[in-house]
Amino acid sequence: MERVVIVGGGFGGLYAAQALARAPVEVTLVDRRNFHLFQPLLYQVATGGLSPGDIASPLRAVLKRQANARVLLGEVDDFDVTRREVVLRDGRIPYDSLIVASGASHHYFGNEAWEPLAPGLKTIEDATEIRARVLLAFESAEREPDPARRNVWLTFVLVGGGPTGVELAGALAEIATETMRRDFRTIDPREARILLVEGTDRVLPTYSPALSAKAARALERLGVDVRTKTLVTAIEPGVVTVRVGETRERIPTHTVMWAAGVAASPLGRAVARATGAALDQVGRVVVQPDLSVPGHAEIFVIGDLASFTHQTGTPLPGVAPVAMQQGRHVAKTITRRLRGEQPEPFRYFDRGSMAVIGRGAAVAAIGPVELSGYLAWLAWLFVHIMYLVEFENRLLVLTQWAWTYLTWHRGARLITGDRAPCVDGERAAQSEGRAARGA
Amino acid sequence: MERVVIVGGGFGGLYAAQALARAPVEVTLVDRRNFHLFQPLLYQVATGGLSPGDIASPLRAVLKRQANARVLLGEVDDFDVTRREVVLRDGRIPYDSLIVASGASHHYFGNEAWEPLAPGLKTIEDATEIRARVLLAFESAEREPDPARRNVWLTFVLVGGGPTGVELAGALAEIATETMRRDFRTIDPREARILLVEGTDRVLPTYSPALSAKAARALERLGVDVRTKTLVTAIEPGVVTVRVGETRERIPTHTVMWAAGVAASPLGRAVARATGAALDQVGRVVVQPDLSVPGHAEIFVIGDLASFTHQTGTPLPGVAPVAMQQGRHVAKTITRRLRGEQPEPFRYFDRGSMAVIGRGAAVAAIGPVELSGYLAWLAWLFVHIMYLVEFENRLLVLTQWAWTYLTWHRGARLITGDRAPCVDGERAAQSEGRAARGA
Repeated sequence: MERVVIVGGGFGGLYAAQALARAPVEVTLVDRRNFHLFQPLLYQVATGGLSPGDIASPLRAVLKRQANARVLLGEVDDFDVTRREVVLRDGRIPYDSLIVASGASHHYFGNEAWEPLAPGLKTIEDATEIRARVLLAFESAEREPDPARRNVWLTFVLVGGGPTGVELAGALAEIATETMRRDFRTIDPREARILLVEGTDRVLPTYSPALSAKAARALERLGVDVRTKTLVTAIEPGVVTVRVGETRERIPTHTVMWAAGVAASPLGRAVARATGAALDQVGRVVVQPDLSVPGHAEIFVIGDLASFTHQTGTPLPGVAPVAMQQGRHVAKTITRRLRGEQPEPFRYFDRGSMAVIGRGAAVAAIGPVELSGYLAWLAWLFVHIMYLVEFENRLLVLTQWAWTYLTWHRGARLITGDRAPCVDGERAAQSEGRAARGA
Repeated sequence: MERVVIVGGGFGGLYAAQALARAPVEVTLVDRRNFHLFQPLLYQVATGGLSPGDIASPLRAVLKRQANARVLLGEVDDFDVTRREVVLRDGRIPYDSLIVASGASHHYFGNEAWEPLAPGLKTIEDATEIRARVLLAFESAEREPDPARRNVWLTFVLVGGGPTGVELAGALAEIATETMRRDFRTIDPREARILLVEGTDRVLPTYSPALSAKAARALERLGVDVRTKTLVTAIEPGVVTVRVGETRERIPTHTVMWAAGVAASPLGRAVARATGAALDQVGRVVVQPDLSVPGHAEIFVIGDLASFTHQTGTPLPGVAPVAMQQGRHVAKTITRRLRGEQPEPFRYFDRGSMAVIGRGAAVAAIGPVELSGYLAWLAWLFVHIMYLVEFENRLLVLTQWAWTYLTWHRGARLITGDRAPCVDGERAAQSEGRAARGA
């Protein structure tokens, strides 16, 4: 029986596994986490709207009825392409076909020291970390008697004006102006300053200029200070330095979030080392038209880890629909090969893209049609609920959203872990402690 | 305006704050966490049935409409009863009346070294820790080729046959026999051994012997190995030693949970030091008939931290209804005193107690009426849903439970934090690392 090993249980890996359900193969899905994460809604966890369990599904539960698939919790270190084995930290798994779909993580453009000060948003732990930092900033402001210091606690800087930055900024603004409006006695959360800093000349740079302008206006209506053409030059404890043209500005703040750079998973380098495949600038593996690696028809790289340039000349974007379609395509290729048929080249069918700004506010580009405002928001809501992998999650998320919509309430505003509100200067020390523990 | 400071946002503190809503007082509720935790359902989080957000409500959200109450996130270190100030780690809060309701935590009967090996279940972090250990034990068993070692991974020991131990044992048995039945390919989760170890001669020793027997039979039907008259004499990495009479037995296991001992919060000692009040054996403050501390009519101690013996001769049990009623009583006493009236003694009105074993199985003692089986389970379900503090949580929990009931599914089975499945011997090192970080 053909042994297919899939590394990574994100959209690409999971859809590949499911598309192989009826194929005469044995599927092994390896992930270091025991759940599939619905990353597009991670910003909702970071802002207290949803619980981690609402957007994560145990991989075993998703695949329990697929008799030809097994799930293995393990950390992949390397690939032995000569013996055709995946090298785990504590074992090896032989394969006949290999699908590498280990995704991407943050990238600080060489400023790795910024990471503890400006966490990104890729994992459940990132989301609960950001949630705790945001909530603790409001708590610390409530306890701070000095107005100037209080304003520093109430300043939030988001680096990066792509979908994640826009969504986080919108959700933060809604929390401050609506959800927590009556929660405090000393501060008025509406005094919070939310700065969205983007290096190019507009937010959502992958959308049309018209939609970017609409998104920026929607954010400004929510009170977000949108700063385009603005580069972050330094992130230090208590202050972010930005540059606009030749002018530098120091923004005192204790809460910075990183939504700017993404780099491919380190397993890209392992694939390149083992097969001689090329990597692009952000570490993605340059793949063939059928998503295989040059010289290895049995090894496929898909999703955020793959650089697929055969359709538009530039790499396809790192979004869930690309990964899902690539996962299904590779499954089909493996099935065809077992029948003795030739592989077909992959074609991405772009159903459109959308970003949400807040309640009743979103932008969507669906082929030639551009939507914004309420209609785009409804479309966004519908698509995201439908895509959630398991029925239970859909139902729960729907309940929670209906409730949030009616009441502005966000019930998952928990500060977990060992934490306390900070006095000035402490935050940096805590962050360093965290980084050390994470290492 | 009379300043009332409440330390602790559990059932006692929160109910006291709410009962003071119409009194001419300024209420300050201090807690080191920003949420109220519905502890009776914590075992559901530990077993993946509910998400932390489902059983926790932000204190600010609960009290947002109560204009005379403010919430302060802070760590209380001591009490200055001469200056009438609560001493925080980083500040002081003056009070006219003080309510100390800081609850209880685990107690290892002098064997504090057992804590990292056998976590208890009092906080959200405890629950996610136990959830991760249980799930990782199954994952490790799935990866273990040696049958003997696999059995060690599939052995779970619960120390303590009170309500928490019974509820955890029942929920674990259901996960193994139903929820995860089809999740694995190498192991059959139904082979899991779940041992419930209790020192006295029956489980649920605070109930009648008839109900204890029914609970034990219900557990055994679920496959739980109930060991009464059994004392734990040692917990070491990989093995628990128990003693029955003069016979010792070594039980190889990597997953031990502690549900045996509870001790009052360290703030009990601070109260005793400051006021000269007596502490009982487990560190609870011995209170007057009106719940005040001898010699300090303005200081009250309630809930799990109080030892109230004036009604039955023995201390009232550490359960939510006692704390709630005491919170309300103290609020009334403060209001009466402001009107120049005398305090009245507290009387606990016992509406009954109940413990759940599994789906459709519970025991309940309501005055002279004893229920077991399905009816008791329905009563338990109704009472617990109704008590959940906020409407949103009730709705969500209801949805989740309805779904779990129909499908045996548990969606919140996430392993979070930096973890990987273990090979033999590693678990102890991880636990030690955790204890070091927690210190």
